[in-house]
Amino acid sequence: MSALIAAISISLDGYVAGPDQSAEDPLGKGGEQLHEWMFKASSWHDEHRSEGGEDSVDSQLLAELRERVGATIMGRGMYSGGSGAWAEDPRAAGWWGEDPPFHQPVFVLTSHARDPLPMQGGTTYTFVPDGIESALEQARAAADGKDVHVAGGAAAISQYMAAGLLDELTLHIAPVLLGDGARLFDGVGPRRMERTRVIESPSGVTHVVLRH
Amino acid sequence: MSALIAAISISLDGYVAGPDQSAEDPLGKGGEQLHEWMFKASSWHDEHRSEGGEDSVDSQLLAELRERVGATIMGRGMYSGGSGAWAEDPRAAGWWGEDPPFHQPVFVLTSHARDPLPMQGGTTYTFVPDGIESALEQARAAADGKDVHVAGGAAAISQYMAAGLLDELTLHIAPVLLGDGARLFDGVGPRRMERTRVIESPSGVTHVVLRH
Repeated sequence: MSALIAAISISLDGYVAGPDQSAEDPLGKGGEQLHEWMFKASSWHDEHRSEGGEDSVDSQLLAELRERVGATIMGRGMYSGGSGAWAEDPRAAGWWGEDPPFHQPVFVLTSHARDPLPMQGGTTYTFVPDGIESALEQARAAADGKDVHVAGGAAAISQYMAAGLLDELTLHIAPVLLGDGARLFDGVGPRRMERTRVIESPSGVTHVVLRH
Repeated sequence: MSALIAAISISLDGYVAGPDQSAEDPLGKGGEQLHEWMFKASSWHDEHRSEGGEDSVDSQLLAELRERVGATIMGRGMYSGGSGAWAEDPRAAGWWGEDPPFHQPVFVLTSHARDPLPMQGGTTYTFVPDGIESALEQARAAADGKDVHVAGGAAAISQYMAAGLLDELTLHIAPVLLGDGARLFDGVGPRRMERTRVIESPSGVTHVVLRH
């Protein structure tokens, strides 16, 4: 069966976003520092239809992950880019614009039922009001044998971990402290994982792959 | 000038000890999992005058750190092995017994003035009631050109970081979640560090060295 995987940038003090997240500042205060390595990766620019970046080990890791994945799951916070947009207009397209960087089926965890929303570039948003297991089942069917990626936010990844449904977690550990913000692992509880791979990047980030 | 360094085992969710620490269980619930890699290292057994362990990359890293260090600083919680012993009898020797594994001058941060306490094997405890800078100054003088090690607990290391006095931090990242316990970095606040080295150990731990 295809694996459920997550890969997320995290600070040394355990934050995956800074404080005061909003639709205008979805990464929170200082949160962009967690993602600097990614913005320098050519494979990230390819997904986002922009120019630039290097073919670094960071870029290769991102491309590998992308290659394995056939469908994406996200929380409604990640879909709407923070708190604001969704609440203001539930018919609105997500924070990611008309041509989102996913290029595959995306399943959005939400409490609002809503028709699927096809976007440009291969992304179709399907809204799943009946829980994380339903979203995973639908995503697995859509992934056509490939893996499923729970993209975020922290709460969505933590929910899948707490339910024992996540197979693999990659932490991109950035050499910064944020001091406050959104933590990964809230409510997950004690457990052991198996570390399967470490990649030391010249960008300063340390990628640690764990089997759950 | 000699560097102030810290090296501490930490869980994926940012805890350096489990919940419910006490003199009977100074590592807290589940906390021993953070240190398993160390208990398998021959250099750890050498310091503790016990037999066993392997000459692994973990052991080599511990031996390297030990070689650099001429004096140790610790909080009174680490000295007393949790909350109990110190409060019950301030004249008591520390939790570490009559032949402590430090084999060098140890400066204990405390609010109680008290005469120095020489132990077996080269450890002498000096009690410092007048703050972290005084402890560092005394430790530097005692270290005789070698580095100074702030051994713990979390609060002592975080205080030196917050004051901008720590030069190097090694995190031994264990592949476990503890779910609760004592966090490193409380009160330290936002900052960038420079990652200088990563060691992937077959034991499952990932050593990340950071310049502060």
